[in-house]
Amino acid sequence: MQRCFSLPALRAYFAEFISTFLFVFTAVGSSVSARMLTPNVASDASSLVAIAIAQAFGLFAAVFIAADVSGGHVNPAVTFAFAIGGHIAVTSAIFYWASQLLGSTLACLAVPTTSIAVEMTGFGAAILEGVITFMLVYTVHVAGDPRACGRKGLAATAMGALVVGAVTGACVLAAGSLTGASMNPARSFGPAVVSGDFKNQAVYWVGPMIGAAVAALVHQNLVFPSAPEQLPLPHESRHGSVETVVV
Amino acid sequence: MQRCFSLPALRAYFAEFISTFLFVFTAVGSSVSARMLTPNVASDASSLVAIAIAQAFGLFAAVFIAADVSGGHVNPAVTFAFAIGGHIAVTSAIFYWASQLLGSTLACLAVPTTSIAVEMTGFGAAILEGVITFMLVYTVHVAGDPRACGRKGLAATAMGALVVGAVTGACVLAAGSLTGASMNPARSFGPAVVSGDFKNQAVYWVGPMIGAAVAALVHQNLVFPSAPEQLPLPHESRHGSVETVVV
Amino acid sequence: MQRCFSLPALRAYFAEFISTFLFVFTAVGSSVSARMLTPNVASDASSLVAIAIAQAFGLFAAVFIAADVSGGHVNPAVTFAFAIGGHIAVTSAIFYWASQLLGSTLACLAVPTTSIAVEMTGFGAAILEGVITFMLVYTVHVAGDPRACGRKGLAATAMGALVVGAVTGACVLAAGSLTGASMNPARSFGPAVVSGDFKNQAVYWVGPMIGAAVAALVHQNLVFPSAPEQLPLPHESRHGSVETVVV
Amino acid sequence: MQRCFSLPALRAYFAEFISTFLFVFTAVGSSVSARMLTPNVASDASSLVAIAIAQAFGLFAAVFIAADVSGGHVNPAVTFAFAIGGHIAVTSAIFYWASQLLGSTLACLAVPTTSIAVEMTGFGAAILEGVITFMLVYTVHVAGDPRACGRKGLAATAMGALVVGAVTGACVLAAGSLTGASMNPARSFGPAVVSGDFKNQAVYWVGPMIGAAVAALVHQNLVFPSAPEQLPLPHESRHGSVETVVV
Repeated sequence: MQRCFSLPALRAYFAEFISTFLFVFTAVGSSVSARMLTPNVASDASSLVAIAIAQAFGLFAAVFIAADVSGGHVNPAVTFAFAIGGHIAVTSAIFYWASQLLGSTLACLAVPTTSIAVEMTGFGAAILEGVITFMLVYTVHVAGDPRACGRKGLAATAMGALVVGAVTGACVLAAGSLTGASMNPARSFGPAVVSGDFKNQAVYWVGPMIGAAVAALVHQNLVFPSAPEQLPLPHESRHGSVETVVV
Repeated sequence: MQRCFSLPALRAYFAEFISTFLFVFTAVGSSVSARMLTPNVASDASSLVAIAIAQAFGLFAAVFIAADVSGGHVNPAVTFAFAIGGHIAVTSAIFYWASQLLGSTLACLAVPTTSIAVEMTGFGAAILEGVITFMLVYTVHVAGDPRACGRKGLAATAMGALVVGAVTGACVLAAGSLTGASMNPARSFGPAVVSGDFKNQAVYWVGPMIGAAVAALVHQNLVFPSAPEQLPLPHESRHGSVETVVV
Repeated sequence: MQRCFSLPALRAYFAEFISTFLFVFTAVGSSVSARMLTPNVASDASSLVAIAIAQAFGLFAAVFIAADVSGGHVNPAVTFAFAIGGHIAVTSAIFYWASQLLGSTLACLAVPTTSIAVEMTGFGAAILEGVITFMLVYTVHVAGDPRACGRKGLAATAMGALVVGAVTGACVLAAGSLTGASMNPARSFGPAVVSGDFKNQAVYWVGPMIGAAVAALVHQNLVFPSAPEQLPLPHESRHGSVETVVV
Repeated sequence: MQRCFSLPALRAYFAEFISTFLFVFTAVGSSVSARMLTPNVASDASSLVAIAIAQAFGLFAAVFIAADVSGGHVNPAVTFAFAIGGHIAVTSAIFYWASQLLGSTLACLAVPTTSIAVEMTGFGAAILEGVITFMLVYTVHVAGDPRACGRKGLAATAMGALVVGAVTGACVLAAGSLTGASMNPARSFGPAVVSGDFKNQAVYWVGPMIGAAVAALVHQNLVFPSAPEQLPLPHESRHGSVETVVV
């Protein structure tokens, strides 16, 4: 029983919590968005496509970011199957379940279920942008974590880029009809310069910056605690060293 | 002739059966769903997108889960081509064909071809959820099977997560308009808590749990029989050991 | 100049021909299908999605199947860029161009540009099924060719399965509204058994079988000639040997 | 401070500029296209799918092509997170930000924001085709650069092909409703031969050829400067040597 509260065990529960949050947010969010965009969801094949792609991309990212810490179950039925196969203890499985159910419930609270104007502004939009940017930047950290993969080859680099693209697509399907799902100040800055309309810029800088900072801190301190002797990511370069740009 | 009934041969036939079931279920299921959602399927590009993505994701998963056991043909024409090239014996090819045709026929019986309300409940929904959860959890086992890949790198971990995401997307396209294609009690639990509506919860717990258990047993005992000296999946971790959480 | 007619050079031209045929068939075919399904293509975002996915999946497969033989240009502009960079001789580049333009022209002749009923039957449908099955089975051979990859790991197996899924999706988008784009007798057999309607079964057996046979012969004899000492694909198995099923 | 102007540092800034240009072009371009195609974008799930896929595929390619040079941030929030984690110096982060904001602004200027006829012709179309062909051919060079990956296996080859397919899909979603997003003279030549209509052929030859040439020069001379002792791409072949086709 004590083993269930060891540090690696707590990290595994937290990883299941984050991943189930991510998956359910994209699954439920895309479902709500599709229903908003098409009142009669049952008569629209493109709504089904939107929900299916959101879940495919969302679960891809959710399983990936938890794989090395908890096994990436993200699903009580998967945990149950591994318990039956003897791959996880029943007590641990119960804590996995609790983490998954908690992540799912919080995700449903974070998904806005009321129809909001396309050009949503202000506090709520900044929070939503912060939540989805957290998911993006956390995924970027896991995909690019040099401690996970050492010297990567082309296939690993490309797969890391693919999972980053996938989580972005899932978040656009979940929140794109609410805030535009920018998750990226640069993506909002260019159109503002060209159109001369800087009205809601703050939303797309404050939200993402806070979300990104929290993601970096959670990744580095809680789920993947730093091994001091290892080198960080953007330095490793095969084409001329970029280490000169770094403090 | 006797060789056609050796244990590895029977396993290969069974793998072809499961994979063809999975592929035809998603192909025919998405086609039926699209036709339900859009009465005049011939005049809708988004129905075509739904069917194409379901088949792309479904065949990706179907070929992957059988690749190491049977070669992942999932198609009598592919088996025929390998027979012409001398890569498979004619007698074996005939058993491959029989397995594929049987899998396809059973898949068509499992696809509900009558229009069901979006909020389908009860016994039929639980069975459908059980069938698609079986496919998801079976794929999870093959993708994460440590006996297949030893120490995985980032690329292999990510590809495993991708195939899990893909099979989920395919199942949503096949059954999403019928039961919601949850395949995941956590995904159904959160919305129930937030909405306070627990009416059909049992459907999304009983069906997936039984499907997941059957998947674990079929994987471990029939198709990929356990090598006793090897370690199971969720233990292997590069970031601090999770072995303390396991019995 | 003589070098341009060496056997490897001719193989490279032929690979460019096949790949450009595949890509243009899916690009133009999906475009024609979208226009048929939606008369006013300019006012429909889902047509754009169909065309974009067809080209993404089609080019993925086209580049992949030619990569090891010709570099996988599939595009005169790419060949031009490599010629500028000094990576290909100008004379070779001209033969690459000729192969690409010929492949594109034949692909446009193979795409049916007149509206055909959804339940297309007979000779034309069998030919169309044969053409797309050729592309699928040829891709299966390249993805699974043991001479290309030796002992594959999980990532390579999964990528091979992904490209097979992608070419299937592209072909469904190109020909799904015409023949259903079965490319697989099993996929057509199950629905026929369940519905009791075997009317057009011959189309979905004769076409794919001939296409698959031609793909096997072209792959093995023309583009990737057999190295006699190497072992064929479906034998290599990590989970118990399947060699007993093979002559 | 001087370190911020070293050659590798300048290359990293340039890589961020190109990648952010690519990502914002596909994100804003697909958004503008969807709005043109569907006046009331808020009521259409397929527009959301188009934008989500464009961003997923576009960011996949954008992160991939910059990964080895700058780390592939493509987002001020990601750079901020890496600065907080101590992986990049604050002064470097500021130059990363400037490069990203500049890339985004130029991308928004390159996206045509006025509705153009489907069969757009002339100078503007050639420029647009040139811009998107630059992105495709630059991605082809990074994906196939032998200096990046040495002897590639099947997984790396397939991932390179996938990213080429993805950038094509993203460009079709961004510019397909304007010029057709050919990026490939062969793709435009075949339909012209079959239809006998060569009216706008020049657009699809001049634009792509110039874009491809610029991509080759930028890749080889600015971002990935040539190491003289290394071998170029299309020569390396596992199936018979193609070196005879090369000067």
